Amino acid sequence: MNGVRERVEIVEVSPRDGLQNEQTTLDTATKVELITRLVDAGARRLEATSFVNPKRVPQMADAEQVMAAVPRRDGVTYVGLVLNERGLDRALAAGVDEVNFVVVASEEFSRRNQGVGIAETVVSVDRMVRRAHSAGVSPTVTVGAAFGCPFSGEVPVDRVTDLVRRVLPSGPVEIALADTIGVAAPTDVTRRVGAVAEVAGSTPLRCHFHNTRNTGIANAYAAVLAGVSALDTSLGGVGGCPFAPRATGNVPTEDVAYMLDRMGTATGLALDALIDSATWLESRLGRTLPGMLAKAGPFPR
Amino acid sequence: MNGVRERVEIVEVSPRDGLQNEQTTLDTATKVELITRLVDAGARRLEATSFVNPKRVPQMADAEQVMAAVPRRDGVTYVGLVLNERGLDRALAAGVDEVNFVVVASEEFSRRNQGVGIAETVVSVDRMVRRAHSAGVSPTVTVGAAFGCPFSGEVPVDRVTDLVRRVLPSGPVEIALADTIGVAAPTDVTRRVGAVAEVAGSTPLRCHFHNTRNTGIANAYAAVLAGVSALDTSLGGVGGCPFAPRATGNVPTEDVAYMLDRMGTATGLALDALIDSATWLESRLGRTLPGMLAKAGPFPR
Repeated sequence: MNGVRERVEIVEVSPRDGLQNEQTTLDTATKVELITRLVDAGARRLEATSFVNPKRVPQMADAEQVMAAVPRRDGVTYVGLVLNERGLDRALAAGVDEVNFVVVASEEFSRRNQGVGIAETVVSVDRMVRRAHSAGVSPTVTVGAAFGCPFSGEVPVDRVTDLVRRVLPSGPVEIALADTIGVAAPTDVTRRVGAVAEVAGSTPLRCHFHNTRNTGIANAYAAVLAGVSALDTSLGGVGGCPFAPRATGNVPTEDVAYMLDRMGTATGLALDALIDSATWLESRLGRTLPGMLAKAGPFPR
Repeated sequence: MNGVRERVEIVEVSPRDGLQNEQTTLDTATKVELITRLVDAGARRLEATSFVNPKRVPQMADAEQVMAAVPRRDGVTYVGLVLNERGLDRALAAGVDEVNFVVVASEEFSRRNQGVGIAETVVSVDRMVRRAHSAGVSPTVTVGAAFGCPFSGEVPVDRVTDLVRRVLPSGPVEIALADTIGVAAPTDVTRRVGAVAEVAGSTPLRCHFHNTRNTGIANAYAAVLAGVSALDTSLGGVGGCPFAPRATGNVPTEDVAYMLDRMGTATGLALDALIDSATWLESRLGRTLPGMLAKAGPFPR
């Protein structure tokens, strides 16, 4: 694909992937204020929380309370991250619009992080995708560590396409490729999105980048050129990476939105409102966030 | 151009554009240590200093002393930035291998920053390029504010190509497009590099990006795809932007080198040595620099 898309959907992941990796745990009311601010700024699809073991991820212990309080508006959908059947039960009961499941493209990462191997995860995700469909909730599948593994290093493209081929039969409504540890270069994105698109056919693709090694925005650009319909981003670039303690989080929403805006690609997001909320989030977390647009301001002014 | 280049030349600009925008002024010995470290890490073309009015840029007041002390090795060339005849006299006397002249693609920016308009600058640069050739020193011309102006906003592509057309007759050995205030999106880069390449013919192109709004690395990627042969980068992303006080500097050398390395594009730079020197430079400047590879580490390890 050679042209630049007219529109790209931004999935706001700060309430989940962002806050999950922050030292400061925000209370439920502040999380709901964050989500409300994002919706007011034009966000229409938000990963609001994850339904995981609160002992392992204490920042997400209030998943049900967050979902009960988010603003319900026309066209706004809330995603919950789910790793197992118990989490799916909770997510469905909490009223999410969409569930995001994860399979990891590295056997070692899968065993260390999820406690089970790839084959077992594929079976479990297959079953959960079908359950979500039955419950009338949209299931998506994210391929984690799709660009590299912190334990075993390089992840071959074939392993990613093979995994996508195995999760497709249950009918996920979207496949995402996640650079969980932030190692991708844009040519990796072009190659992997191209290869996965051939396997996925008409199933839309999303990408999820961390800016760990400063390549995240270039990767987002390459993903848009390669034809993905959606990108995960996080207000202020909030979050971090458990595998690189000094590293930054997801690509910042306002910086990606600025770039897409200047490219003539619509996102529906208002830059001024994002900048205002990124500054507000810095004050709530008590630290400077990596997003740059809030520091430099938009152009032209 | 559709493929990815096998090799891109990195021009290290931390000793000039980086340090010029830092609050802490390094002494000459530390600047020479920085340059020596960069050469040891594989840098072969470095903008070592600028020959400008020391009252206006006190950080560069020791230009002659720096040039007298830099390590002279086969294949290593030192560039001096020059804005007028007096600066050219000094640069030639100091023994630079290359002089970099600047024309600005915004009348207002030119008058406010250089004190003269575009037409006058073009005449002056034309004369200086010819003088450099006569002196056996390579002249290059950088088009400043080629992607936007802090005072007048948008800079049309036609103004950039027109300016390039006017500076070509004296025979600069390279034309650079500089995003002086860090506003470009990668599609701007594709468009401008393409348009300038048509005008410049066989004259090679370089790009100079600031990461002010987090688009700098994506712009570097777009420039490489568009066929530029060289990129300006700055160790650690040292420096800043006088037009956005909280903003960061040039794109970080080690982060760009990591990306190009993962793309299979050779730079001749050793990542480990760059990381080590970026950490050293942080200690000399007493602040954390924006470069990310030094925080996260290379991949695979």
